Amino acid sequence: MSVRPSSRPKIPRPQRRGETVAEGGLAPGVDYGPLTDLLGYRLRRAQIRIYQDFLDAMDPWSITPPRFSAMTLIRHNTGMKLTELARAMGIARSGAVEVVDSLEKLGYVQRASSPTDKRAHSLSLTSRGAEVLDEVTTLIRRHDEKVSASLSEMEQAQLRDLLEKLGQVAHSHP
Amino acid sequence: MSVRPSSRPKIPRPQRRGETVAEGGLAPGVDYGPLTDLLGYRLRRAQIRIYQDFLDAMDPWSITPPRFSAMTLIRHNTGMKLTELARAMGIARSGAVEVVDSLEKLGYVQRASSPTDKRAHSLSLTSRGAEVLDEVTTLIRRHDEKVSASLSEMEQAQLRDLLEKLGQVAHSHP
Repeated sequence: MSVRPSSRPKIPRPQRRGETVAEGGLAPGVDYGPLTDLLGYRLRRAQIRIYQDFLDAMDPWSITPPRFSAMTLIRHNTGMKLTELARAMGIARSGAVEVVDSLEKLGYVQRASSPTDKRAHSLSLTSRGAEVLDEVTTLIRRHDEKVSASLSEMEQAQLRDLLEKLGQVAHSHP
Repeated sequence: MSVRPSSRPKIPRPQRRGETVAEGGLAPGVDYGPLTDLLGYRLRRAQIRIYQDFLDAMDPWSITPPRFSAMTLIRHNTGMKLTELARAMGIARSGAVEVVDSLEKLGYVQRASSPTDKRAHSLSLTSRGAEVLDEVTTLIRRHDEKVSASLSEMEQAQLRDLLEKLGQVAHSHP
């Protein structure tokens, strides 16, 4: 894999703006009150920790988790529209607009106007975007394996089952 | 607990803007490609599912997870500054500004200028904010218990341990 820091686009990221993100999602000397007892907050903290590691690994391409998800979805769903992307990502349309704008500025994604509906633009990867996504996907698989490797095979399967179970029951009531 | 929909402030939220959020974080008919294999993405999906449920329960007060975290941290850390809040939440300063602006508009949080440093404002809850936080904390504990109840006591302990383990090793290398 080739890392080309010289071609790195200048998109601001928290670290580049000189901001620090708490190690492990928890800042020392801060009283987190009832937050520490909540399962929802523990999930969030685990995600921030993984996210932080992810950001470091993706630095040369300015790729963040939502940008990676968006590019993967655009690649696997030909002619995807912005509204469909937002729905697939489970985020608000305004959030998807922000992600696609960044990806367009980075030269990874392009919008083509639809011949049937002038207002709806179908999204696609540029050839540079496809190239970057290939390299980044390899790195992310490796990153995910590294994070997962802190758990045994059996623990990984357990975690997968527990997370699935958690999600299903959260929506089994009206 | 008293719910007062009439006093509900008008702050836009995805649902209010007529946008839909994918059930369970996954949209039907969409190819998620390699995302489905990644542990990081499974964590994210579980979080979206819990978050969605949370939003429904918090609707009367326009409280979102980051707003709840911010209010809890402001209550438990007297005289907290914006930069300290951002660090405690593990987010960028710009994100904390956004959260505090919303909370100020809602009348839950106020900024008081520091006598020693005119530029640094210390944050505190308004009396209305303190009242809302009490009611919301009760609801959130109930919500978290409901989501957790999909797992047995033993499974909950397992999930807690697995998440802790995951986070620690993610940062055990440089």
